[in-house]
Amino acid sequence: MRQHEKSCKIYFFTYFLDFMKAIIVSIGDEILIGQTINTNAAWLGSELNQIGIKVINHFVSQDNLDSIINILNYSTNFVDLIIITGGLGPTKDDITKVALCQFFGSRLVLHQDAYENLKRFYQDRGRDITETNIRQAYVPDNAKILHNSVGAAPGTMYNSNGKTYFSLPGVPSEMKAIFTESIRNILLEKTTKDTELKISNKVIYTVGIPESTLSDKLSSIENNLVDLKLAYLPSYRGVKLRIDGIGKTYEEINENINYTYNLINNTISEHIIEEEMDILNAISYLLKTKNLTISTAESCTGGLLGQLLTSISGSSDYFIGGLISYSNQVKMKNLGVNSETLEKFGAVSDETATEMAINCRDKFKTDFAISVTGIAGPLGGSAEKPVGTVFIGISSKYGVEVQKFLFGKNRDINRELSCTYALYNLYKLIKSKY
Amino acid sequence: MRQHEKSCKIYFFTYFLDFMKAIIVSIGDEILIGQTINTNAAWLGSELNQIGIKVINHFVSQDNLDSIINILNYSTNFVDLIIITGGLGPTKDDITKVALCQFFGSRLVLHQDAYENLKRFYQDRGRDITETNIRQAYVPDNAKILHNSVGAAPGTMYNSNGKTYFSLPGVPSEMKAIFTESIRNILLEKTTKDTELKISNKVIYTVGIPESTLSDKLSSIENNLVDLKLAYLPSYRGVKLRIDGIGKTYEEINENINYTYNLINNTISEHIIEEEMDILNAISYLLKTKNLTISTAESCTGGLLGQLLTSISGSSDYFIGGLISYSNQVKMKNLGVNSETLEKFGAVSDETATEMAINCRDKFKTDFAISVTGIAGPLGGSAEKPVGTVFIGISSKYGVEVQKFLFGKNRDINRELSCTYALYNLYKLIKSKY
Repeated sequence: MRQHEKSCKIYFFTYFLDFMKAIIVSIGDEILIGQTINTNAAWLGSELNQIGIKVINHFVSQDNLDSIINILNYSTNFVDLIIITGGLGPTKDDITKVALCQFFGSRLVLHQDAYENLKRFYQDRGRDITETNIRQAYVPDNAKILHNSVGAAPGTMYNSNGKTYFSLPGVPSEMKAIFTESIRNILLEKTTKDTELKISNKVIYTVGIPESTLSDKLSSIENNLVDLKLAYLPSYRGVKLRIDGIGKTYEEINENINYTYNLINNTISEHIIEEEMDILNAISYLLKTKNLTISTAESCTGGLLGQLLTSISGSSDYFIGGLISYSNQVKMKNLGVNSETLEKFGAVSDETATEMAINCRDKFKTDFAISVTGIAGPLGGSAEKPVGTVFIGISSKYGVEVQKFLFGKNRDINRELSCTYALYNLYKLIKSKY
Repeated sequence: MRQHEKSCKIYFFTYFLDFMKAIIVSIGDEILIGQTINTNAAWLGSELNQIGIKVINHFVSQDNLDSIINILNYSTNFVDLIIITGGLGPTKDDITKVALCQFFGSRLVLHQDAYENLKRFYQDRGRDITETNIRQAYVPDNAKILHNSVGAAPGTMYNSNGKTYFSLPGVPSEMKAIFTESIRNILLEKTTKDTELKISNKVIYTVGIPESTLSDKLSSIENNLVDLKLAYLPSYRGVKLRIDGIGKTYEEINENINYTYNLINNTISEHIIEEEMDILNAISYLLKTKNLTISTAESCTGGLLGQLLTSISGSSDYFIGGLISYSNQVKMKNLGVNSETLEKFGAVSDETATEMAINCRDKFKTDFAISVTGIAGPLGGSAEKPVGTVFIGISSKYGVEVQKFLFGKNRDINRELSCTYALYNLYKLIKSKY
C-alpha cells in the first residue's frame, strides 16, 4: 500500500515538473564583461526550481535591441515562461522595453497607474520628477504592471501565444521584491490551474548549524520523502529549510509536510527557531514581548551587531546603545577594561570579552549586554589565535557567559557569523531562562 | 572635419564589433537552479574584454545533449569564438564531449598525449588510474589538446568553418589555468592578426549624485560620443561610470577617452572621486596616508557607519571607536548631549547632531568625528520632520558642520545613504583642508 502510494505520487510530481519550463534572460553589458556577477539568474533559478518549474537556460544579452530580440525569439521555441531582468532604468543603455515592443508588436505608452506610483515614489523622497524619470512610467501597451515596493521601475507581465513573460528591474532588491510579492503567486496559480494538483510548503528557520552538517543530519529523512522536496536556503543568519509538497488536497499535503516537519524537529530541535522567523527577527520579537533591553560592546564587528539589532523598525524599544571599542585605548578608557587583562590575555580573549560584556551592561543599564572581540582577518592572526578566532560574551542578571569560536579566513564572513552566533547564544539564553 | 572624423570612426566601431565576437557557454544544471553562481562566465568575460574581444552573450545549458547542441548551433550564427566551460568530469552527467562530437560530426578517440598526462597526473598523486578516469583522455578526433596544469581533464580547441571553439573544465582553478597558460596567447595572436583596432576603457567613481540626475547632466556629452560608450553602474556607495573606447592605437583611444573624461569632469567635478576608487576605499586610503583618525556617534544608522569604516582590513590604523547613541538616555549620559537641546530641538536636529559630533571627537580624541541622527522609518515621521530626515555632522579642528538631508521612506536605503553622504562630506572636507 505504502509502495503503491509512493509510485503513484512520484508520478504526480514528474508530471508537474514536465509541465512548466522557463528561461531566464539577463540584460546588461556589465554582466558580459564580468563587472557584475549574474546573481539574479542564480536567485531566480533557485526560486523557480523550488516551486517546481524547470529552468532550462540562463541567457545574458547585450544592451542591444537585436541581441535581446534574437534571444527572445530563440527562447520562445523551448519554454512557456521567460523571465527577463535588467534594462529598465532611466538611462540610455536601458532598452528592454523598446525590445519588448518590437518583439510583441506593441508600442510604449504612459501607464497611468505606473505614473502615479512613480510620482509618489519621488515625492516621498522629496525629489522632483524629471523628464528622464517619467520614462520609467512608459510601458508596452500589452503589459500588465507589477508594483515595485522598493524602487521606481515597475515590473511588467505579458501573455502572448500561450506563453508568459515577465520583465523585472536588474537591481537585485527590486527584482526580488517584485518576484516575491507578485510573481511567485501568479506562477503557483498557473502551475496548479493546469493540473488538479495543489502545492503547499512550510518554512523552517534554523540557526547555528552549517548547511553541510544540516544536510548530513537530514539525509535519511530526505531519502524517504514522498511527494515532498526539501530546499536549503543558506544565508549568514542561518539556513532556511523549505518543505515543498504536492498532492490532491491541501489537507493531504499539510499532513505529509507536518509528518516530515516533526521528524526534522526531532533531529535538530536545538537549531530550530520556534518563532518561525529568522534569528534577528526572533530576537527582536522576544525582546519586545518580554520587555527586555540590550546593549553591545563590539570590537572586530565594528558596529555590525548594533546595525543588525537596529535594522528592524521599532528597535528603539529594546536597543539602548552600544560602544564600538575598536582600539585598546577605547576598551580601557571608555569601557573600563583592565589594562592588565589586555596585557596578560590580549584583546582577543575570554577575559577581555568577559569584562567588555559586564562593563557594557553596567554602562548602558540594560538586561543584556553582548561583547564581541576577535581577529576578523585577513591579517593579525597568530599560531595561538589564528584569523577567525572570536570570543562572544553575554552578560545578564544570571552572570556572564563567554564562548570561543573559530571561523574561517574571510573578514566579512567572520564578522557576519560572529553576529549570528551572538544572536543565537542570546536566543538560547532568553528561551531557557526568561 | 570633425564630422568626417566622426562618421569615419563610427565605421571603425562597427567594423571592429563585427569582427571579433565571442559567446561563453556554461554547462551545468547546478548553475540553472542557482546552486552554483556562474563566476566562470564573469571571469572569462572580463578576460576577453581586456584583450579586445567583444562578449555578446553568456549562455547556460542543461547537462543535456540536445540543449548543448541547440545552443552551439545558435551561437555559431553570431560569433567567431565560442568558449564552453563545464561538463568534462568523469561522471555520467558530463556530456560536453559527446555533444561536441555530434556537433562537429567527429568521434571520441583516446588521445595519446592526454592519456600520458592523465597517467602522470594520477601517479603524482599516488593514485591508480581507473576506467572512469581514463574517460578523461578521450576527446573528439578533431580536437587540439590544451594542457591542464592543475587538474585531470585537458582543455580542447577546435577550428571549424572559420570559427574557433574552446572547451574547458568547469572547475574555476582549472578553467583559469588553461585560459591563462594557453588560450590568452592564442587569442591575442588572432586579434592582432585579423584587425588593427584596439579597445580600452576608463572607470570614473562618482558619489553624491543619483543615477538619473547624472544621466541628465551628461546627456549632451553622451549624445556626441565618437567611438566611445558610457555605462552607468549604480550602488548604494555611488554610481560607477565606465567609458569604453575603440580605435587604431591605444594612444588614439586614450586621447579620445581623456577628452571625454575632461568634459565629464568639468560637468560634475564635485562628484568625482579623484583617487579612482569607491568612496569607502577613498576615505580609508586618505585617512591612512594622511595619518588621520576618526570616531563615530550614530543614532539612526545604529552602527552601520562604524561597520563600513571597519570593513576594510587595516582600519584599526584610523578607526578608534564609536558610540551607538540610540536612546536619548545614551545621548545625554554617555555622549554629554544637553538635555535642553534634546527637549527644545529634538533628537533629530541640527543642534543635537552638532553636540554629538563635538562630544564624540572629544571623547575619542580623534581628528574627525561623524554624527548621524535621523528618522530611518518607516515609522516615527512628522509633518515637520518626515521619515527620511537625517542630520549628518562632522567635527574637526576647523569646527563642526552639519548638513540636513531628506531621503525616502525605505529604512534600509535611508541608513545606507546616510552613511554614503557622511563619507562624502568627510571626503570633501579632507580634500579641501588636509
